[in-house]
Amino acid sequence: MHRYRSHTCADLRAGDAGSNVRLSGWVHRVRDHGGIIFIDLRDHYGITQVVIDPDSSAFKTGETVRAEWVIKIDGEVKQRAADLVNAKLPTGEVEVFARDIEVLSTAPELPLPIFGEPDYPEEIRLKYRFLDLRRETIHNDIVKRSRIISSIRRRMVEQGFTEFQTPILTASSPEGARDFLVPSRLHPGKFYALPQAPQQFKQLCMIAGFDRYFQIAPCFRDEDARADRSPGEFYQLDVEMSFVEQEDVFQAVEPVLRGLFEEFAEGKPVTPTFPRIKYKDSMAKYGSDKPDLRNPIEMADVTEHFDGSGFKVFAGMIASDPKVRVWAIPAPGGGSRSFCDRMNSWAQSEGQKGLGYIFWRIPEGGGETEAAGPIAKNIGPERTESMRKQLGLKEGDAVFFVAGKPDQFVQFAGQARLKVGRDLQELSGGTFMNEDQFAFCWIVDFPMFEWDEDNKKVDFSHNPFSMPQGGLEALETKDPLTIDAFQYDIVCNGIELSSGAIRNHKPEIMKKAFAIAGYDEQVLHDKFGGMLSALQYGAPPHGGIAPGIDRIVMLLCGRENLRDVTLFPMNQRAEDLMMGAPSEVTPAQLRELHIRLNLPN
Amino acid sequence: MHRYRSHTCADLRAGDAGSNVRLSGWVHRVRDHGGIIFIDLRDHYGITQVVIDPDSSAFKTGETVRAEWVIKIDGEVKQRAADLVNAKLPTGEVEVFARDIEVLSTAPELPLPIFGEPDYPEEIRLKYRFLDLRRETIHNDIVKRSRIISSIRRRMVEQGFTEFQTPILTASSPEGARDFLVPSRLHPGKFYALPQAPQQFKQLCMIAGFDRYFQIAPCFRDEDARADRSPGEFYQLDVEMSFVEQEDVFQAVEPVLRGLFEEFAEGKPVTPTFPRIKYKDSMAKYGSDKPDLRNPIEMADVTEHFDGSGFKVFAGMIASDPKVRVWAIPAPGGGSRSFCDRMNSWAQSEGQKGLGYIFWRIPEGGGETEAAGPIAKNIGPERTESMRKQLGLKEGDAVFFVAGKPDQFVQFAGQARLKVGRDLQELSGGTFMNEDQFAFCWIVDFPMFEWDEDNKKVDFSHNPFSMPQGGLEALETKDPLTIDAFQYDIVCNGIELSSGAIRNHKPEIMKKAFAIAGYDEQVLHDKFGGMLSALQYGAPPHGGIAPGIDRIVMLLCGRENLRDVTLFPMNQRAEDLMMGAPSEVTPAQLRELHIRLNLPN
Repeated sequence: MHRYRSHTCADLRAGDAGSNVRLSGWVHRVRDHGGIIFIDLRDHYGITQVVIDPDSSAFKTGETVRAEWVIKIDGEVKQRAADLVNAKLPTGEVEVFARDIEVLSTAPELPLPIFGEPDYPEEIRLKYRFLDLRRETIHNDIVKRSRIISSIRRRMVEQGFTEFQTPILTASSPEGARDFLVPSRLHPGKFYALPQAPQQFKQLCMIAGFDRYFQIAPCFRDEDARADRSPGEFYQLDVEMSFVEQEDVFQAVEPVLRGLFEEFAEGKPVTPTFPRIKYKDSMAKYGSDKPDLRNPIEMADVTEHFDGSGFKVFAGMIASDPKVRVWAIPAPGGGSRSFCDRMNSWAQSEGQKGLGYIFWRIPEGGGETEAAGPIAKNIGPERTESMRKQLGLKEGDAVFFVAGKPDQFVQFAGQARLKVGRDLQELSGGTFMNEDQFAFCWIVDFPMFEWDEDNKKVDFSHNPFSMPQGGLEALETKDPLTIDAFQYDIVCNGIELSSGAIRNHKPEIMKKAFAIAGYDEQVLHDKFGGMLSALQYGAPPHGGIAPGIDRIVMLLCGRENLRDVTLFPMNQRAEDLMMGAPSEVTPAQLRELHIRLNLPN
Repeated sequence: MHRYRSHTCADLRAGDAGSNVRLSGWVHRVRDHGGIIFIDLRDHYGITQVVIDPDSSAFKTGETVRAEWVIKIDGEVKQRAADLVNAKLPTGEVEVFARDIEVLSTAPELPLPIFGEPDYPEEIRLKYRFLDLRRETIHNDIVKRSRIISSIRRRMVEQGFTEFQTPILTASSPEGARDFLVPSRLHPGKFYALPQAPQQFKQLCMIAGFDRYFQIAPCFRDEDARADRSPGEFYQLDVEMSFVEQEDVFQAVEPVLRGLFEEFAEGKPVTPTFPRIKYKDSMAKYGSDKPDLRNPIEMADVTEHFDGSGFKVFAGMIASDPKVRVWAIPAPGGGSRSFCDRMNSWAQSEGQKGLGYIFWRIPEGGGETEAAGPIAKNIGPERTESMRKQLGLKEGDAVFFVAGKPDQFVQFAGQARLKVGRDLQELSGGTFMNEDQFAFCWIVDFPMFEWDEDNKKVDFSHNPFSMPQGGLEALETKDPLTIDAFQYDIVCNGIELSSGAIRNHKPEIMKKAFAIAGYDEQVLHDKFGGMLSALQYGAPPHGGIAPGIDRIVMLLCGRENLRDVTLFPMNQRAEDLMMGAPSEVTPAQLRELHIRLNLPN
């Protein structure tokens, strides 16, 4: 028999009754029931109940074992009586009566319990991460993360992609965040940078003639921690393709993501075909370029109903500036004064003046549906009714209004849409929307340039290396602020998984784009000289995307903290409390690296 | 039709004749044959010949294209005349007559040619790596590397392993090489280290209860470059398993490596069952703990034949010191004076006094086989004959001798064995051994401790964290120098792919082992406190291995330089000539990281 086990702790079933088996694992829980010892023995695969009778030769040792000791037991499998079957465990039909027990490792009093999984302070959980990881939920999430990544790799290879490893010790990349630097021993005064993303390398792969690149790529940004981004390092599904247009990238990536989510969604629906939503439309309908499409509310422009109306606040604004718009946030099912007042108070708590509304109800005494609220009174029944028809609302519904210049109110409008949705969900007892789904969309046609109000100049909106729609001709003939880029986002449930773009592969178009944004050609050469040089030697048209792995795993595990789905995460202060990183180093190490400390006073 | 292509440059066959197609790719070669332009159009997948007739509307543009421009052509597929078929190309039965051509990118004069692949200085190849990678051989090797890694992953998952990502920004690990350091912005004066290997993390995975870990793990060592190790970063197939003995690790890893090599060996034989060779036997038979088993020569101890013999040099050494041994290096087929003299001269060029020999021949005048050379004369026919029988040699064979204390001559003996084998291979016209095979073995039973002659003390031989055979009892009762460890190597064709070990998972055994090697318990706590603490909380028995990915790829691609199988390698001076890394950084960056430069004068 194997030195440690004939079966895992997940293997045994009723059919094994009578077998002599050997199991090894951790003591998940130990109980003494009137002289009989019950041990829940746990390994990576599962839990099996071990029983030690007082007359067993294992009893004496069995009495000494404590939680999280590692033991090996030999014994006989017995079927449990029907009323003692534990339906929650796959092994719940049997128990193993131990004949022999060997203690493989002991453990002192634990700093945090494994059994029962109570909430525990994160600092202790991170310091003893090797214990925290024994807890069932986190153990399962980490294994699920691994299965997800494995599935992504399989799907990418099936789509004809090849995985490459790009350098980790490299030069600073122009991603705009702060680099981690690594002093060079061989080259005094010089530093490597860890890649913020393999952006330049994947483009160089395309220029080198590899057609379909991907990588589960570690990326490094020395930025302050956020819940959805680890301090220090994170992973992305880095993708790049040659001889493609935007739609080709979608056709390659969409089936991978849809298939992946369907595989791990545990029955939750996944968008069958991801809608393509223009950036402008997304802002107008959802007040955001990362709309949560589980929320069915779509905003609408209702300016015409207020223009010249009796609601002087809005009518005055509209009259004073043609850019002023009034947007409606329909709230089906929100048609009560208490709901509308609650939203109004929420808006005030967010620093707004309030959130005007109309709601439709049947008067208390009965009769025709009436529109309630001061705004309805001010604009009168005709305008109210024509607006109701535009929005498709009915008795029991409400609508909220935001007014002003859209670029100034759009962010709040987006928040209000989400808030109204959440509160309607609560009000409806969870029937307003299906939260248990993965609602994807592509956001397309991002503007290439934007007006930088601070510096009174045109600047790049997003990525200066994206291809402008219309190419060089557009740059030479059109108002820059009207030019869109072949730049896109993939969004799921309101979370941006990634930006992507068709790259600008032509040096002359890149130079023109930088000139429009007011950058001297020298800036381009100084900052991106290597890339610019490579583009000159026969670059193919290419484009890609880089969905965040950690965010995908968070979505699929239903977690809201990256640290729950990372094996050995750092804390918010970028410390590894278990390994003691970062730590002090010796003066000799510093000398060798040609640096000295420059500590704050 | 797709914007850039209806087919790749590897797709078209005779059956496509008559089709209108669109291809995009690089101009691999362009020739003007009497007014007809021939373009070898190349993409990631292959090459297709494009023809432009003088009356084609594509002709004018076609005349302008140069090597490595990126073009798109529309045209008709035509079958080539039988005598014009290019059997070397999968698309060699057809050519595409271009009707239309679009230049997607141009290129100036190239710093290195793609077509023809002449040798070029490495510095230029690395600076223009994106061009170098377009060359067929290196392109194919890089793709093969990717397929190898993908196959490893599949095979490991099939063996029940789970891939995990361990941190890259971490604390210094006790691997003994020099760390790359990363200054912390948030923690002035403190540094992260890049992992030399995820050794501690994979052991922590086991302590955390994950059973079968693997990772294609990036590792970082700030060491000077070698041909078989990149400066800076390299990858290993990091493996760890719980509740296992040494043989379990072999049973898990051996099928993965064998299957992998069989898949990519292109018909070369792979060892069907990897022999397990004890370290001591390997040293005695092959003079090395990484024997090249393609070479069939096995050395043998022939001391007895010289003890008290007439060959006074050896006899005297043997008489003076019982540790002195004489080893024989049999050389089947090397039985000529010229061969033996050549070996002797080689030994002298290596700083040895010479390489004594006997060879067997039929005398020029015919008659019985005779043993030739001065040693045979000195020891006489009886001893010579009994040695011949021991070694199984015959007429036409030779044997070489090394004598002294084995630990002093063993390294040279190993070299001599390889040299004799190489020269016999040449002499035999390649029939002495099959070099075109992958000959694997496990080397087992490495000694736990060794005598440190410099410091006159016992010290660890290899890895202080391996489990000594016999455990605590052996440490407490046996002479340390007689204790073996559960430590092993996997070797292929004389290349060590990896060390591995069953780990010491018990703190008390570890403390005892460190005490034997003369280390205070405090050293253990100071250097490996985190690990020691983790081992106290219920560590399972565990062990693993970490074969080097780059070496595996080198073997399978038949390359001798790591840079040939690395996508974007650094040069020997740890510089990325393409991206310009390492590079200078700004004073502001240094201030933020709380360091300043300390440059040599």
